[in-house]
Amino acid sequence: MFKVNENYLKLQGSYLFSNIAKKVSAFSAENPDKKIIRLGIGDVTQPLVPSILEALHGAVNEMGDVTTFKGYAPDLGYEFLRNAIVINDYKARGCDINADEIFISDGAKCDSGNIQEIFSQDSKVAVCDPVYPVYVDTNIMAGRAGVYQPATETWSNIIYMPCTADNHFAPQIPKETPDIIYLCFPNNPTGSTITKDQLQVWVDYANKVGAVIIYDAAYEAYISEDNVPHSIFECDGARTCAIEIRSFSKNAGFTGVRLGFTVIPKDLKAGDVTLHSLWARRHGTKYNGAPYIIQKGAQAVYSDAGKAQLKVQIGYYMNNASYIYKGLQDAGYTVSGGVNAPYIWLKTPKGMTSWEFFDYLLNQANVVGTPGSGFGPSGETYFRLTAFGSYENTVEAINRITAL
Amino acid sequence: MFKVNENYLKLQGSYLFSNIAKKVSAFSAENPDKKIIRLGIGDVTQPLVPSILEALHGAVNEMGDVTTFKGYAPDLGYEFLRNAIVINDYKARGCDINADEIFISDGAKCDSGNIQEIFSQDSKVAVCDPVYPVYVDTNIMAGRAGVYQPATETWSNIIYMPCTADNHFAPQIPKETPDIIYLCFPNNPTGSTITKDQLQVWVDYANKVGAVIIYDAAYEAYISEDNVPHSIFECDGARTCAIEIRSFSKNAGFTGVRLGFTVIPKDLKAGDVTLHSLWARRHGTKYNGAPYIIQKGAQAVYSDAGKAQLKVQIGYYMNNASYIYKGLQDAGYTVSGGVNAPYIWLKTPKGMTSWEFFDYLLNQANVVGTPGSGFGPSGETYFRLTAFGSYENTVEAINRITAL
Repeated sequence: MFKVNENYLKLQGSYLFSNIAKKVSAFSAENPDKKIIRLGIGDVTQPLVPSILEALHGAVNEMGDVTTFKGYAPDLGYEFLRNAIVINDYKARGCDINADEIFISDGAKCDSGNIQEIFSQDSKVAVCDPVYPVYVDTNIMAGRAGVYQPATETWSNIIYMPCTADNHFAPQIPKETPDIIYLCFPNNPTGSTITKDQLQVWVDYANKVGAVIIYDAAYEAYISEDNVPHSIFECDGARTCAIEIRSFSKNAGFTGVRLGFTVIPKDLKAGDVTLHSLWARRHGTKYNGAPYIIQKGAQAVYSDAGKAQLKVQIGYYMNNASYIYKGLQDAGYTVSGGVNAPYIWLKTPKGMTSWEFFDYLLNQANVVGTPGSGFGPSGETYFRLTAFGSYENTVEAINRITAL
Repeated sequence: MFKVNENYLKLQGSYLFSNIAKKVSAFSAENPDKKIIRLGIGDVTQPLVPSILEALHGAVNEMGDVTTFKGYAPDLGYEFLRNAIVINDYKARGCDINADEIFISDGAKCDSGNIQEIFSQDSKVAVCDPVYPVYVDTNIMAGRAGVYQPATETWSNIIYMPCTADNHFAPQIPKETPDIIYLCFPNNPTGSTITKDQLQVWVDYANKVGAVIIYDAAYEAYISEDNVPHSIFECDGARTCAIEIRSFSKNAGFTGVRLGFTVIPKDLKAGDVTLHSLWARRHGTKYNGAPYIIQKGAQAVYSDAGKAQLKVQIGYYMNNASYIYKGLQDAGYTVSGGVNAPYIWLKTPKGMTSWEFFDYLLNQANVVGTPGSGFGPSGETYFRLTAFGSYENTVEAINRITAL
């Protein structure tokens, strides 16, 4: 008789955003006349820019011609895209990364979920708290998280690094030594960043204790300040301790187009074994490449026209971020984030829990946000709003909230 | 100090098709004047048909308009596609499958590699021998295969079901009882099929012993004979024992477009736990949906025009299959497959090993095929040729081989 993976059964409730979707559906069904504004899930709303559309159409045409048709893609992704990434995202920032250290994938969520698989079952994992749920959930599913402790809403074998107002939402080196450290800056959900000097401390620490940093830089395009690193490979020594995960979802509006990549330097080794070779094996065995059409679309992100158009698009979202930030601040809320990230992180008023505030906003203002506690226990009494709505909806949402 | 997943290090050599690619590259580099014809990897060569191109262009346009732009897709995939699948692939064949039992993904390789993850670590796996390497490799990577036994080229904890000329390439119920049974019909690599009655025996057996059949039907579009099932759900009782994996790669030329789906009936349970719920959780946590553009392209596969155009395309490949089959048979080779599948399976001449014949064909005829032994020990002294080349190349390849 077959048996299931018992680790899956340890997962608490369902995925955060599924829960939110269910609550919103139920409210909509009961209140069909209410216009709900969604500033919850980090999904973009603006259309793809013209350069990308042109590239996509061009690639579709190629697929219709026997002389330019493309079948299976190269395992690591097309060289034209990996080269464009190296030049623009790495060499331009002085990072020593080569095209054969880049693995194109169908998105940062898949990569950040699957990457744990190349590590030992008994690895000790450290995460920021609050944090993007995928890091912890995928380690639970792998049997690496220990047992759930309801009193603290934590897992016995996970190291939590609280990020709260007390430490300006920047994690501190944990007391217990981890094997794998997940860092995400600009941060989801807090919208906070750390400076290059602060990140260098983490790189030095990881090299000292032999840990790997899995660095999620999905939001780097939103960085507006100079001393904030766009890549962990801006730090000295990162080639021997860091994996970086990037996304086209937020810098180019690809949430429904699906593309991302992971960088694993060949100097990152456990003894003789490179993590690059293990991830290559995973890619070769359990994955079959991202669509050619989509990879051509992503190439346009790096064209001059594409860059100019996307700068406008990111400016549009950051204008929303600024409106949310100022509006809530003026109304007396305690807010952070929103300067180098499309997320605004606010303290719930009157001691409400995160879910109480979620229900309050949904019912009273018909605005959907994300409860901070859904990202971890230190997210309790916080709440995330995203800047990815339309400007009109963003203004209306903030006006509704501040009028409460 | 971090450690790696030791199970990855147990894998023998690299992925079969990577090995072939390296051999072919080396030969090309040494013989730049030789025109190599590739009938090895099962990659298609014909362009996407007009209906699909039109749907792809239409979807790209939608992504460029704020009123029709699509962000994150629904977890299971778009309903328009799941409905089209249910109507055409299931209801039309009398199979009781609902749209919410279908999970759209980026391909059958990913699904057939990831599906093992929802089962217990100590599950006993049975595979046909020879077999698509992904089934065994992903179970090795999960630590489920035991130890490698070089003398027999098998893994101690895997049940092998030999498929050779002696049993007409149809597996027999194994002596040891498995928890998970991988079946693939029309078969890769042998190109063989089994009848609906034969498949019913497997379904009855699985229900009797409490095993799950993972049924890979990626090649169902090539079935030309009436008594061969297109889906395992044509069999009575399959809803309580079977998972089916499908692909758009071979029926619609999507190897570089990437789309597939997995069907998990809600009646398939271990105690109270449905496998559907576990796969849904995996989809929700480690995956983020297939591109909207690609899902729209796949919808066109089910339009009247799409069906008519794809019938021609499959006919084109099957004409190649027929040419290979007859050409080799007339030249004295022992061949099978090629009637309900795009693969021709041949016995190597003069007692050559599979890799000896690979080198012989590459060097003497400049034709690339796939060594049968790469698919498992019972594939030794067999060789796979695919019908996915152009007609001109196929004819030239067979003429070169038969002239040796």
